[in-house]
Amino acid sequence: MRILGVDPGLQTMGWGVIEVDGSRLRHVANGHCTSETGTALGLRLMGLHRQLTDLLVSHAPDTAAIEQTFVNRDGAGTLKLGQARGVALLALAQSGVEVGEYAPNTVKKTVVGVGHADKRQVEHMVKMQLPGAVPAGADAADALAIALCHAFHLQGARAMARARA
Amino acid sequence: MRILGVDPGLQTMGWGVIEVDGSRLRHVANGHCTSETGTALGLRLMGLHRQLTDLLVSHAPDTAAIEQTFVNRDGAGTLKLGQARGVALLALAQSGVEVGEYAPNTVKKTVVGVGHADKRQVEHMVKMQLPGAVPAGADAADALAIALCHAFHLQGARAMARARA
Repeated sequence: MRILGVDPGLQTMGWGVIEVDGSRLRHVANGHCTSETGTALGLRLMGLHRQLTDLLVSHAPDTAAIEQTFVNRDGAGTLKLGQARGVALLALAQSGVEVGEYAPNTVKKTVVGVGHADKRQVEHMVKMQLPGAVPAGADAADALAIALCHAFHLQGARAMARARA
Repeated sequence: MRILGVDPGLQTMGWGVIEVDGSRLRHVANGHCTSETGTALGLRLMGLHRQLTDLLVSHAPDTAAIEQTFVNRDGAGTLKLGQARGVALLALAQSGVEVGEYAPNTVKKTVVGVGHADKRQVEHMVKMQLPGAVPAGADAADALAIALCHAFHLQGARAMARARA
């Protein structure tokens, strides 16, 4: 199973693709979708939508996961992030994949073991669990962590279903 | 010239189309794009994007205008609105129309004459300036007001250009 993780943002949107085969995890690719400050907002969103749609076509994930957005920051920041996140959710829905949503704390707790881990710890654990992965930056590392979190949650759900059967 | 006005929202997105011929204004159509609470967010955004894209095809506006969003409300509300607004801006950019953005106070000041006008005053002035218009609801009336605001600003810009020539 192939999983796409997305860390939404207007200027930089991190993405990461991993493969899950039973309990084996494999890094496939990661990177950033970007938009240029100073360009009209509609064009920035169109660029992000196109980059994410291209990724969905080229990597053909079976499922996807996206970070639930902080809303306790300033209103203008929340609005920007919301606009980018809306376009990301749209691209995912248009591609037909199911989307898991995880709060930042859930991602950290699942991948690092503690909810208050910092960015370096997240990146370290991502590299440990995905040998050979070289995150393109902090947002790409977060996206890989989100994909890992989704993998663990799906495995947990499957293990529970097996235990019940 | 045909103008589409959009009042963004996740549950209800108001829209209104007007025509400008010199100083003459004409109502063309108005209504709401809607999404169902309880449905997955991605599917709701996909529905709004499709409805707005259909409107852009059927009404073929020459230009569009959208309300600048309040950011002084609660974070969760700003995020919801941001996601819907992002998808609206994307649909407009994909259709290739130029988009004007106006703060709610600018719309009210332009259409009603005062920045703190209430919804009934806005609807009243919309009906006065667009004879025969029957707004489908408050959000559709706001969308028509946004289209009117854009028309007045474009006329003002053209008049200034003429005065300078």
